[in-house]
Amino acid sequence: MTLSPTPAYLELCRRNQRHYRLHHAIGILHWDSATMMPPRASGARADALAELESLLREWQTDPALATLLAQADAESLDPLQRANLRESRRVWLRATAVPPALATQRSLVAMRCEHAWREQRHRHDWPGFLENFKPLVELVRREAGCLADALDVGRYDALLDMHEPGLRDSEVSRLLGHVRNWLPGLIGQIRERQRSQPCLIPQGPFALAAQRDLSEAVMRALGFDFQAGRLDVSSHPFCGGTFEDIRLTTRYSEYDPLAGLTATIHETGHALYHMGLPESLREQPVGAPRWGAIHESQALMLEKQLGLSPAFIRWLAPLLRQHLGEQPAFATDNLIHLFQRVEPGFIRVDADEVTYPAHVILRYDIERALIEGEIEAEDIPVRWNAAMRELLGIDPGELYGQGCLQDMHWACGMFGYFPGYLLGAMYAAQWAARIRREQPDLEQQVEAGEFGVVIDWLRQHIHRHASRYDSNELVRIASGEALDPDYLRQHLMARYLDD
Amino acid sequence: MTLSPTPAYLELCRRNQRHYRLHHAIGILHWDSATMMPPRASGARADALAELESLLREWQTDPALATLLAQADAESLDPLQRANLRESRRVWLRATAVPPALATQRSLVAMRCEHAWREQRHRHDWPGFLENFKPLVELVRREAGCLADALDVGRYDALLDMHEPGLRDSEVSRLLGHVRNWLPGLIGQIRERQRSQPCLIPQGPFALAAQRDLSEAVMRALGFDFQAGRLDVSSHPFCGGTFEDIRLTTRYSEYDPLAGLTATIHETGHALYHMGLPESLREQPVGAPRWGAIHESQALMLEKQLGLSPAFIRWLAPLLRQHLGEQPAFATDNLIHLFQRVEPGFIRVDADEVTYPAHVILRYDIERALIEGEIEAEDIPVRWNAAMRELLGIDPGELYGQGCLQDMHWACGMFGYFPGYLLGAMYAAQWAARIRREQPDLEQQVEAGEFGVVIDWLRQHIHRHASRYDSNELVRIASGEALDPDYLRQHLMARYLDD
Repeated sequence: MTLSPTPAYLELCRRNQRHYRLHHAIGILHWDSATMMPPRASGARADALAELESLLREWQTDPALATLLAQADAESLDPLQRANLRESRRVWLRATAVPPALATQRSLVAMRCEHAWREQRHRHDWPGFLENFKPLVELVRREAGCLADALDVGRYDALLDMHEPGLRDSEVSRLLGHVRNWLPGLIGQIRERQRSQPCLIPQGPFALAAQRDLSEAVMRALGFDFQAGRLDVSSHPFCGGTFEDIRLTTRYSEYDPLAGLTATIHETGHALYHMGLPESLREQPVGAPRWGAIHESQALMLEKQLGLSPAFIRWLAPLLRQHLGEQPAFATDNLIHLFQRVEPGFIRVDADEVTYPAHVILRYDIERALIEGEIEAEDIPVRWNAAMRELLGIDPGELYGQGCLQDMHWACGMFGYFPGYLLGAMYAAQWAARIRREQPDLEQQVEAGEFGVVIDWLRQHIHRHASRYDSNELVRIASGEALDPDYLRQHLMARYLDD
Repeated sequence: MTLSPTPAYLELCRRNQRHYRLHHAIGILHWDSATMMPPRASGARADALAELESLLREWQTDPALATLLAQADAESLDPLQRANLRESRRVWLRATAVPPALATQRSLVAMRCEHAWREQRHRHDWPGFLENFKPLVELVRREAGCLADALDVGRYDALLDMHEPGLRDSEVSRLLGHVRNWLPGLIGQIRERQRSQPCLIPQGPFALAAQRDLSEAVMRALGFDFQAGRLDVSSHPFCGGTFEDIRLTTRYSEYDPLAGLTATIHETGHALYHMGLPESLREQPVGAPRWGAIHESQALMLEKQLGLSPAFIRWLAPLLRQHLGEQPAFATDNLIHLFQRVEPGFIRVDADEVTYPAHVILRYDIERALIEGEIEAEDIPVRWNAAMRELLGIDPGELYGQGCLQDMHWACGMFGYFPGYLLGAMYAAQWAARIRREQPDLEQQVEAGEFGVVIDWLRQHIHRHASRYDSNELVRIASGEALDPDYLRQHLMARYLDD
């Protein structure tokens, strides 16, 4: 970053750097809590993390920042500095728009709700959940109202904007509406076609050490740098740590070796984004990745676009047999069938790429209406089950743990995040279409285990820009056009209905 | 801790709690740096740690603390609260006695000296080391001068006091003088006696996983709680993390399985001290362990007093054979000879318990004279080698890496720490004598793998007091008398010269 005589901007950068370093500590401690920490330390760890997080909030809401931001705005900044100022203001706005007392209360009520939910979902205890959830919804609405006032947008818009700057509900509604039109028909066609397809299930158990070695081999082939990151195990896979010290986690199932591998590839997509961020911007907000749908698109690009392609599976198959042993289910054709199996199910995180959008659409409909006050929390189960029947032809009934109690998001008070999962799939389809157009021999390269062409494209067109552009600009710069949901339809048609 | 209407004291406790939580983060990050961190993250980690450490210094030197300490002193406190106030003042005094500019400069020069030393010791490059070391000594003298003024003691006294509150050079000189009188004679007698003793060396390699399992089994038997701590590997063994989340590390050598096990047992002694601290005092200075010699005595109690005893080795031998396989060197009698082998050598950390005191005495003589200005840095090698000849009958010559360049302490600007290693051995001998007196069947219990009587005694008489008493009071409360160095002599005579 070029430095010119811009004292306010420089002071802002100095403060950003301090915040970033505190983030580093918080990121590693969170990772440690999920992977390494002995159980009896959890209380002390929660205290230490709360202390650091409250300190970060204190720094981020320092009244002096408002003055600094205004002063820096009047300074002569180059475009990159101006983008950094814009991102710094975004962080500041998020931190200050909600009164501290409300933010604290929301956070406490959310913690209680999430903690009780962990048990309630197993008992399908919707009434019990509702007791904590209703006051939480009320607080989230108020919080969203504060953010909406600050941004001068609607309540649900404000929550969307937290995860995806500039994303508005009108746009989400249009994009998801596109998918809603063709999805049920497409699922039916694919199911019909797969009905007669033979598909053998792998016969386990598969040693966890062998699965870990396989995961690491695939990560290496995809370009994960083990000098700047690690792979460990946690109960939910995530990509944590910090941008320069990436702590990726996965989980292994003794009887389903594809699940852990798929999670690893997904998280590797997130990790490569962090590894591809420009070092020179690292401690500044403009140097952060675009969270939300763009980040998800990096994971889905690897997991779905690349990872479920026959060319990739043909490369993977011998490696997989080498680590897990030979058996009929690991024949290349059967692996393609296994990875590409489409089957409506209750659980979002277990869904294939064809039925997954249905899970997002139903959640979006409900959470939007809930935040805007069009429905109340009590209305959720009926709406949920009706949408499941309509979109996927199945109904969880009163097994709420397989229905509206399955996700952690709402229990944590997190709304406006779900659309990003589907938008991410759309972005990924658009990136893949672009790469195919530029690289006619893509398939041969992938089958030969040469993934450089994919990874380099992502680095060149997405990663290196960090947060310099908002998502709309970024998609145009990267792919030459605005986000077009039809790429997702074309991708699914080509993969599942063409010969 | 009982709470009474003592507003200044309570505010002090609130601040201590904040400091403690920051310490928690720093402790885990340091452990992570040594065990888990991928190499390319080291720059960002150093930045993050420097940020947290400078924040801690900022908090600890807040001028408001001086007022709070004075106000709390005038409040009506119970004895435990008063001890906590005393310990809080100690922390404050240490943090504020040295002007920040001097402390920063010292820290930078020490970092440079230590960094260069890592290579210089391998090249035996004393002249190169001296270039960085001379200015470091000058800064340490000035720092010690500031501390001495604040404490109203001598310069070396002030450095001793940092590690062992209340310990003075006159006392160290008396205690070490006692050992100096009988040590060379004792070493000669033991060497003479062991001359004809057969001693087989274990024939490796020994798989690291088997060594780790053995280490964990021994830790479990000694009472290490794996629900509140972990065992990992680092290049230098240490007991890190925080009091409620103990991160113990060791290192394994493929060809010397006893080295790793010995390090594990030593660090387990440190760890049990932390595990035995009272939970109710945890976040306050009075709840910390006594660092320095008392802490070392906990490690040496396990490693030497217990771990080298024939009864313990008789318990250990079958467990060791179970993990590492049968071979003649692992016969019980041979293991006793191996563990108890006495042999003068150049390297302190490899020394047996009989020759170890000589290494401490020579370092004490040199560093005391250096800090007091009686000698200069240039004088060290000649003095070092002369003392080695006098005390152990060997001379490293110009192989400084095996002589005065072997330890990290001085290269880091750390003086006044070495005496604690020998005082720790004296304390441990005194605890062991006391336990033997109270438990006539101690040997049978140890041989049966029942270590509860030892561990419970330490918990009851040392651990649970945390920092309530200074070391002089603590030794009287725990053992009924002042520290008496003759217990160490009696212990060595009994173990190595009796039949």
